[in-house]
Amino acid sequence: MVTKSQIKQIKQLKYKKYREKTGLFVAEGKKIVLDLLKANLDFIYVFTTKINFGLDSHVISKKDMSSLTHFKNGSDYLGVFVKPSVNHKMLNKNRTLIALDEISDPGNLGNIIRTCDWFGVNHIICSKNSVDCYNPKVVQASMGSISRVFCHYMDIPKFIKKNNYKIYVTDLNSKSIYETRFEKKSILIFGSEANGVSDMVIKYSDEKISIPKSGKNKNIDSLNIASSVSIVLSEKFRQNK
Amino acid sequence: MVTKSQIKQIKQLKYKKYREKTGLFVAEGKKIVLDLLKANLDFIYVFTTKINFGLDSHVISKKDMSSLTHFKNGSDYLGVFVKPSVNHKMLNKNRTLIALDEISDPGNLGNIIRTCDWFGVNHIICSKNSVDCYNPKVVQASMGSISRVFCHYMDIPKFIKKNNYKIYVTDLNSKSIYETRFEKKSILIFGSEANGVSDMVIKYSDEKISIPKSGKNKNIDSLNIASSVSIVLSEKFRQNK
Repeated sequence: MVTKSQIKQIKQLKYKKYREKTGLFVAEGKKIVLDLLKANLDFIYVFTTKINFGLDSHVISKKDMSSLTHFKNGSDYLGVFVKPSVNHKMLNKNRTLIALDEISDPGNLGNIIRTCDWFGVNHIICSKNSVDCYNPKVVQASMGSISRVFCHYMDIPKFIKKNNYKIYVTDLNSKSIYETRFEKKSILIFGSEANGVSDMVIKYSDEKISIPKSGKNKNIDSLNIASSVSIVLSEKFRQNK
Repeated sequence: MVTKSQIKQIKQLKYKKYREKTGLFVAEGKKIVLDLLKANLDFIYVFTTKINFGLDSHVISKKDMSSLTHFKNGSDYLGVFVKPSVNHKMLNKNRTLIALDEISDPGNLGNIIRTCDWFGVNHIICSKNSVDCYNPKVVQASMGSISRVFCHYMDIPKFIKKNNYKIYVTDLNSKSIYETRFEKKSILIFGSEANGVSDMVIKYSDEKISIPKSGKNKNIDSLNIASSVSIVLSEKFRQNK
């Protein structure tokens, strides 16, 4: 059984305002919900249309699930979780950090969180106007990695100035990543899908780097941001492994 | 002015059945529409809510545009284009080919098309049950690269058997891509988001390869397919450049 107030609460959690007010977020999909439970994230409810799986899960009908989901096609699992607390002091424990300047596409952020998880990067700095990492589409695209990778919303230049990292900014027509010798302790900065990295952030970079493109084609001018992060992280890890 | 029959036709082109019947597809967004025109793709109509841009474009109201779009938020540009003819003989001219075994997510395919364009890979082999590359979401995510990269829907093992390429299949826990010496003439095969590469395809591979993950984390078991393609293509081009 799902109560009217639960439906209302879950629907409201689609919006950042309510996620901030309540400190809660919604995750959908078997893999994602189970990953969050495995990571010991506190939860308020877990609903499933399948068999009760041991915890405090509620078995509900598919019809009830369709009244809760944030997606066109509801999943078999939906949980309301408590956002883990994120302490900016955790940042300094990571040698490699990713910083995203005004990322807006939730699918891209989710994908970047998943890639960071793969390469063992547990912290991402996002400029304050970036998309919220608890947006349902981010959570879904992260495929459970949202339980292991933390997004820190903060002023990027301010963090850079205060901390001793080598700063790499991705840009067009700069030094090839294959010819760059990445320092172990570094921040890799990527710009928004529409505008690239802002001048304010570029000012604080130590090195501008590019992913070289094939000479064949002059008409393509950018890569998807999640693909760029994947390629640069892979190259850094190849060098530093 | 948009006629009722134009609205009907454009709406129908959301579906693969109608795209196959008519040989047409819809592209939306300024960059994408202009890229397709630049690539000299034949078109039936181009609509814009902005100023007429020289060609046979029709200036229409935002309200009319909202009756045509395939997306929640309509763009300022929408074109109905003729699908370019794809000849499988073109495949042999490329030294690097990507093959996708049952890819289903349109955003991922669009992103892969864009990444291939970046690295100068102009042809992608897709197994017959893969998502259609003229699906509106694929076209959008490809950001115009759909005009330069061609998807060939065919039986992957059949193509492999008939042609002389070195075949690399991505798999978990295989040889690291960083330790693989990629041959110039090769096909890189990637599996579906849900099931990986099918046994039927693995059978014809020469080498199984993996993107190594950080030792820190045992809970993550896969990368997004578009990220995987980006990383493997980047590593191959780093070696072969």
